[in-house]
Order: sequence, then structure tokens, then C-alpha cells
Amino acid sequence: MDPTQFETHPSRYKHWKLTVSGDTARLVMAVDADHPHRPGYELKLNSYDLSVDIELADAIQRLRFEHPEVKAVVITAELDKVFCSGANIYMLGLSTHSFKVNFCKFTNETRLYLEDASTSSGLGSLAACKGTTAGGGYELALACDETVLVDDGNSAVSFPETPLLAVLPGTGGLTRLVDKRKVRRDRADVFCTTAEGIKGKRAKDWGLVEDVVSRSKWDETVATRAKALAAKQTVVRGPAIELKALNPKVTATAIEYANVKVTFDRAARTANLLVLAPERTEDVEKVAASGTEPWALRAFRELDDALLHLRFDHPDIGMVTVRTKGSPGLVKACDEQLAKSTSGLAREIRHFQRRVLKRYDNTARSFYAVADAPDSCFEGVLLELALGADRFYMRMDGDEKIGVATSVANEGFFTMSTGLSRLDARFYGEPARIAKLLARGADGAIPSEEAEQLGLATVAADDIDFADELRIAVEERASLSPDALTGMEQSLRFVGPETLETKIFGRLSAWQNWIFTRANSTGEQGALTLYGQPERPQFQWKRT
Amino acid sequence: MDPTQFETHPSRYKHWKLTVSGDTARLVMAVDADHPHRPGYELKLNSYDLSVDIELADAIQRLRFEHPEVKAVVITAELDKVFCSGANIYMLGLSTHSFKVNFCKFTNETRLYLEDASTSSGLGSLAACKGTTAGGGYELALACDETVLVDDGNSAVSFPETPLLAVLPGTGGLTRLVDKRKVRRDRADVFCTTAEGIKGKRAKDWGLVEDVVSRSKWDETVATRAKALAAKQTVVRGPAIELKALNPKVTATAIEYANVKVTFDRAARTANLLVLAPERTEDVEKVAASGTEPWALRAFRELDDALLHLRFDHPDIGMVTVRTKGSPGLVKACDEQLAKSTSGLAREIRHFQRRVLKRYDNTARSFYAVADAPDSCFEGVLLELALGADRFYMRMDGDEKIGVATSVANEGFFTMSTGLSRLDARFYGEPARIAKLLARGADGAIPSEEAEQLGLATVAADDIDFADELRIAVEERASLSPDALTGMEQSLRFVGPETLETKIFGRLSAWQNWIFTRANSTGEQGALTLYGQPERPQFQWKRT
Repeated sequence: MDPTQFETHPSRYKHWKLTVSGDTARLVMAVDADHPHRPGYELKLNSYDLSVDIELADAIQRLRFEHPEVKAVVITAELDKVFCSGANIYMLGLSTHSFKVNFCKFTNETRLYLEDASTSSGLGSLAACKGTTAGGGYELALACDETVLVDDGNSAVSFPETPLLAVLPGTGGLTRLVDKRKVRRDRADVFCTTAEGIKGKRAKDWGLVEDVVSRSKWDETVATRAKALAAKQTVVRGPAIELKALNPKVTATAIEYANVKVTFDRAARTANLLVLAPERTEDVEKVAASGTEPWALRAFRELDDALLHLRFDHPDIGMVTVRTKGSPGLVKACDEQLAKSTSGLAREIRHFQRRVLKRYDNTARSFYAVADAPDSCFEGVLLELALGADRFYMRMDGDEKIGVATSVANEGFFTMSTGLSRLDARFYGEPARIAKLLARGADGAIPSEEAEQLGLATVAADDIDFADELRIAVEERASLSPDALTGMEQSLRFVGPETLETKIFGRLSAWQNWIFTRANSTGEQGALTLYGQPERPQFQWKRT
Repeated sequence: MDPTQFETHPSRYKHWKLTVSGDTARLVMAVDADHPHRPGYELKLNSYDLSVDIELADAIQRLRFEHPEVKAVVITAELDKVFCSGANIYMLGLSTHSFKVNFCKFTNETRLYLEDASTSSGLGSLAACKGTTAGGGYELALACDETVLVDDGNSAVSFPETPLLAVLPGTGGLTRLVDKRKVRRDRADVFCTTAEGIKGKRAKDWGLVEDVVSRSKWDETVATRAKALAAKQTVVRGPAIELKALNPKVTATAIEYANVKVTFDRAARTANLLVLAPERTEDVEKVAASGTEPWALRAFRELDDALLHLRFDHPDIGMVTVRTKGSPGLVKACDEQLAKSTSGLAREIRHFQRRVLKRYDNTARSFYAVADAPDSCFEGVLLELALGADRFYMRMDGDEKIGVATSVANEGFFTMSTGLSRLDARFYGEPARIAKLLARGADGAIPSEEAEQLGLATVAADDIDFADELRIAVEERASLSPDALTGMEQSLRFVGPETLETKIFGRLSAWQNWIFTRANSTGEQGALTLYGQPERPQFQWKRT
């Protein structure tokens, strides 16, 4: 199968139209039914699949970086009577379990990043739903700051998944209904089991939308609200920077970017992910002004793309070693410069790095960070890759040349989905150890043995034992059941508090994964399988 | 199939020996291999099944009520080299998915209630593990306040589930490792994938146990620690009260207790759960002294038993209407008396009511509370059943005779697993509405129409429409996929913060449910299926 293309550009969009006017952008969903992600189904009625969502993710990302002047984005549809009818059901029916789960995860991330654009980067969002807003369509609206629904006696917001398909609204919908919008739980129960949805005044009374608006006042109201939303923003982005094509070199055994390289050992079902440190210190504003992308942005865009390829195109690769390489001090210098800069661009890059690191945490593969060469460079923001990994193996070379280094990047900005930093998660309940560690890090690189004593390395082994120990650990991991590992890693990685985000990934998605495997949805007589056919689904009635 | 017997008594225990000496109890696991819950497997090496866990739950409950003098319980084993080898794997292999899930839920509740006995009721617990402590055996130890492990060069604590069975340690183990014991997440990762476990000094260094103790110092150390644990307790229970047999009358269409009655409509796959209010006000200490059980205890013990029967013996009943019946004012009077009393018994009864209400929240059935008769009595602690239900239907009879009433029981004591009260969950993020509601409740009963306006009732309908509306709602619910409903209810019921408890039920258990359905564990060539046989499992390698 061809590699999935996660890169796109507004000039190539098939399903969305992005226009910018002053401080407001319009992102118009106009799904081309004849260009699905894979052949076999039509994207009717503004239903979406992975291709549609890849464009949405691209648009939000470009608004953040390339259009810093935009303070509000109106998400609306080209069709007159349909905003969006949700994820395409035939696509779901044709997909493997692993694709379904990864598709849902990606759509969830896209919606969380839309919320993050508002919270962190002064880009508000308004869902202008001038027609049917069903399933994933309403979930997209829920991820916006505000939703207005047309009051035409017909258009409703709805979650028909449970009554019609025997699955959940799986893109954060259930969680956002009660946790974000604070819809009363018994009303949410009625709403989620009413296939036709809720419209008009009741939709507003129940808190499902901010407002319902007649067709005659539609354009004016949407414009007024967009203007007010833009006026409310206080975070200033910019200067603008163009996101250039990544164009990785993809072969049967590797994916290569400028700063990131993934190599595969298909027989062993393992991969190695290598991230290169920057080659020089950089002033991101100057670099941007010169028309190139700073390492801090480019390397993380590459890493992000690599993680998505891993998830979608290499499902049989369960075990990934993570290595870094570079001259000491440069990552730290970049981290410090980024943190010190008051420009919106620098802040935006840090926010993006945070999102990529979250994507890494939420990737259902085992990650073992490995520092086994003197030019290993787990420093600052790259140290986060070791802290986020399931284990961290360090070689002791006797000369103390292999080590790690902390920077301002480890001091709390790069929060996980839980809201904890990766050091908080590693030393959960022991804040004093973090303070001690950061103080030690300020004095210079920490060699392997000391890193183990401080609790940074899982294992530090000497030259003689290291290679064997790592080889056995990797082989063992690759031999275990991928399902059990996914559940185990989900439980151990996300220690501590829960947030809307972790509730979506850890609770809602876990239930949805289970439901996707059950005969009542995906069996031969399941509701998802039979959707659109004359037969009625046959359910197995046992409750668990 | 015969109904499951959840009632037992120490005199009938087959798998545990409970002895009390002064302020310390010993609960000795001595599983009788020849008395499994169902025929088909042997309970070797102190492995457990539902019968073993029912006795454990009974013992903890009786210590709380019947032995208020006991301040510490030592949980240990009769076998010399084995503490507990966990849930019986052959039992799991023979069980249906729905039984496995319910079995895990019950064991999780039992362990959470053991922790609650320590937190709320001055009953500390010490796991004295003088031998192999594997899987569910270590999960039981994790639920105790302290764990000591024998240091004999051989005995280890372990979670072999993932490496040997391709499932998770599903009884809270993963969550408790990192969230409760704060074991470093990368070490937890190593531990959970190392089938042989970790022993001796390393077990202590990693925080897996409080202490490791040689055989020669074993008895003395355990006795000293138990004494210290008892001395630390500050909550005083008592006076003692005997928990009498419930002896429900079970027929094909009903389960009847003195205060609780469940009736089934098997064709419709529905049930009605009726709870009767007390017939008089009661002074629990006086009632107890007279040798009988007060309503507040008895009715909730019956409700608890009924919920367990529903879960295990009636998996095809997905939709339960909940009704209450009684004279107004008496529940409220009982609530006030209980809350006002300073006796340990009164507090213990309230704690028990709280646990039963949690069991209700965590029961994977749709609950619609129904107030449709003038003697309906959703008042105080019984109003919690309506607030915990997925919906609440109230009939308006024109005379305002049908209504609800609040009491001190609705003011925050009866927290859900989230730590929120059911009113907090209903009006999440709107505390002012709760204050207003409770102030209104203090003025007297709230009739249906007003209850709807205040947000208590989901639907208040008049005489003419009520019966039809309810009938249609019940039929519709009973027609939906039970899997999707379980996932939906799990997401909507537990709005707001997460706790160790909700992480266990909502995250860990959801992943485990998914894993239980996957071929890698329970397929023909799955690890759980093939356990103990010469064939090696064959895994499907796709990660999700």
C-alpha cells in the first residue's frame, strides 16, 4: 500500500476552502464525494474520512503559523442544508480495526489542537452550522469556542451513533457534552439516544449550541459573532512563517527527513527513530526572516509526520528505539533562545513542540529511548523524548562522554495530556526530586551512571553488557501481545490527574475500541456493518 | 443456572479463615482447590475465583460492622510458599466475556472497599506475603495499606498477565502501581513485563512493597507492624451489629427482599427495581441494641445484593426502571438521625450506603428512575437513586402529590467514584443551582413540575401522556446495542474529576474489556486460551 500522505497545502485541498480576510478566516467544508482517502465509498453529504481531516489539521496549523493576523476562524459548509454529517460510515465499515482506532485518534488530536489554538494562540473558532450537524459534524462544532445553528425548523445537532450504528460518538463528543459544555447528564443521555437530534430553541436551552439563528439573520449574526470572537483574543502571534514541504524520502526500509530518520527492521517488527540536534544556535525570528524554517520547528514537523506514518502505515512495528545525535549544547541553546524570545513565533513553535510530544505520548507503540553513543544528544526538548519513552537505556562508556542534559524545556512548559510535565510524571508525588535534578542539570551534562541514580535512566549498563541487555529487552518487548501492551502503556504513561484530553484518549477511546470489536457494531449482523442496507441489525443482548 | 449466592458467613467460608484477637484480625487465604465457583477448574496455589472473592468481601464487611474493636487486619495465606497466585486462569479461560468483566468489576469493588475501610473506618490492612505474590495476589496486596514480602531468595511480587496471558493486571494493579504507590513509570513498565517478578531488596527499593523480611524475623515483624497499624487508627466504630441473612425469595420473575423487590419482564428484557421507604423513624443504636437491623442498613444491604444478582444472573436485562414507595418524611427522618448521630455505627451505615450507591453508578445497565404514584418516595438517600439514574421520569398528577424531597443525604456525603456528589454531577459547574435547590428542598416536598424546572426531573409529563412516554422511552432503550450503551453511560455518568477509583473503572477496565475481546488473549490461539498447554500463542501483530 502507498504511504499515507499527511502533507498537504491549501492549494491542493479537495475538501475544504480556506480564505482569509483581515483578522478572520473562513474554513468552508465542501467535501468532494469522489475523492475519498481510499476507493470504495463516496463522501456524500459532507461526511469525512482521513483525507478530509488531514486537510483540516493542515488548515489549522497554517493559520497558526502562516496567518498570525487571523484571530478567529469560522468553520462552515458550502452545502446549504448540511453542515457535516460526520465520519463516513461506509469508510468505517470497510476499515480494519487498527485503521478505525488510528483514524479516531487523529481526528481527536485535530479537534484538541483546534481548542489549543484558541486557548494558547489567540485563534478563536466559530462553528456556523447552517444545516444538519450530525455525529462527527457536531463533535467538530463542540471543539469550537462557539456554535450557532440555523433555526429553520429542520436542522438539528445530533449524535445518532448509538441508536443507528451501535457505536459511540468517538471524537470526544460524549466527554465534551458533559465536561466542556456542561450539558446536564440526563439530557445528554436523551440527546445521545435520539437519532434525529435536537433543534431550535431546545438545542439552545439545553446548552448544545450558543445560539439558534434564522436564515434571514444568518450571515449578519455569523459575521457579528466572528468579529466579536476576533476582538476578544489577547494572544499575538507572528511574525508569519511559511511551512515548507517536508518531502521525506520513503523507501521500503526507511523514512528520511532532514532531521529525522526512521529505519525499519520488518522481520524483527522494530524500528529506530533518530532525531538530529540542530547544527548551530538559531535566532528563530532571523531564521524565519531569511525564508527558512528553524530547527525547532522543522525537526518537530518531521517528527510529527514520522509518528503519523508509524501509526498508519506500519501497524506491525510495535517496538521503536529512539535515539538522538548531535553536538552538545546546541539543543539547550535553541531551547533557551525560544523560551527567552517574546515573539509570537517563538511561542508558537514551543506550542507546536508540545503538541508533537503529546502525539508521541499518545502513539500506541513501545518506545525505548537509547543513549549509546558519545554523540547521543538527549538534551532539553530532546530529553523529553527519553522522559516520555517507556524506558530509557543508557550506556556507560567509562569516560562519562554519554550523558543527558536538562534545559529550560524540562521545567514545565512541555505538559503531557494530563497537564503534568514529563518530569512531574516520572517523579509523581516527589517534586523535591525534580528540583534537585534541575539544579544538578544546571551544572552541566549528567553522565549515564549518575542519570540512573537520579532516576532519569531506567538502566545504565557498562560497555560489556549494554548491547546484549538492550537487544534482549527489545526482542522481549516485540514478542508480547500488542493489545496488552497498548492497554498497559496507556495506564502507566498517564499517571496522575485526568483532563478532558486524557478522558478522551483513555476513557472514551478505550470504550470505543472495545465497542468496535463487538459483534453488535462490526459483526456480520452488526449495526455499523448493515448501515444503509435493508436488513436490521441483530444484537446480542448480554450486558457486560 | 442457579442464582449466584452472594451471601455467606464466616462459619461457611471455604477459602478464608477469619480470626479476631483483640484489636487485630487475621484473614488467612486457604483456598480449597476442590470448591470452585463453577465446576471445570481447580483453585490451585491460592488462586481465586468469584466464590473466593465473595468471602473476602463478606469478611471485610463483617469486620466493619460486627467487629468494631478490630483496627487492623492482616491478610495472609495458609500455604507456606505462596501468598496468592491471582485470579484462576482456567476459570477466566472458561468464562464468557460478560462474566469476566463482571468478575473483574466485583473484585475491583472489593479492593476499593478494603481501601475505604482504612480511609473511612479505622480498619487498617497489612498484606503479609510469605511466598509467591502474583497477578491478582499482588493487586490484593496493593489495596492494603502496607505490604511485607518474605525475603527468602525466591518469593517475588509479580504481574505476569501481560507477558504470559496477553491481558492486563485488571484489578486496579496498573493504576495503583503508579498512582497510589508512585512507582516510577519506567520501572513499572519493566515490572509489568517481567513474568518472574521482582524480589528482595529491589522490590523494596522500587517501592513495590514496604519491607522485605527474612523467614526468621517474619512472625515478629508482621506482629509488630500489625500492632503499629492498629495503634495508628483514629476512627472509632461501633457498637457492633450482626449482619443477618438476607434470604431473598427468588423466583423466575422476581427477587424479593423485605425492602427491595426486583421484577423481571424477560420478553421485554426489562426489570423494575422497587425500594421501600422505612415504616417508622429509627434510632439506629436502639434498633441495633434490640438485635434487629435498622432500615438504613438492611434496605441498602438488600439493594446491594439485588444489584449483584442483576449483574451476574440477568445479563440480558439491560433496562431497569427504579421506583420507590413509602410514606413521606420517614426517609428524611432516618437520614437526619443518621447524620446527627455521633456513633460509629451510624457513620458506618452511611459509609455503606455510599458504597451501595457507587455500586449502582457502576452497574452497566440503563436506569430510569420513575415517580408515577402518589406514594412514590424519592426522598433524601432514595433521591440519590433518581440522581444517579440515567434519566428521571415524573408524572404530574394535578394535585402535586407526586414529588421529591431533599434531606441532609443530598448535601455532599454520598459521593460518587469521582468524588462529586450526585447533585454536583447533575449540575456540574453550576454550584449556585445546587444551593438554590437545597434551600428550596428545606421548605418541603417539590412537586413534579417544579422538579423538572429545577433540573431534577428529566421529564415531567401529565397524566395523559406519561404512561405512553415512559413506555416508548423504555422500549427504545431496550432496543439499543448493550455495548454502545455501556460505553455511553460510562462517559456521561462520570462527569468531572477522575480519581484512582474512576481510573480503575473507566480507563483500566475499559482497556481490559477491549483486550478480553481480542484474539491475542481469548482467540483460539490466544495466550489466555492456551495457558498451561504446550502450544505457544500466535499473535496478530497489528498495533492499534
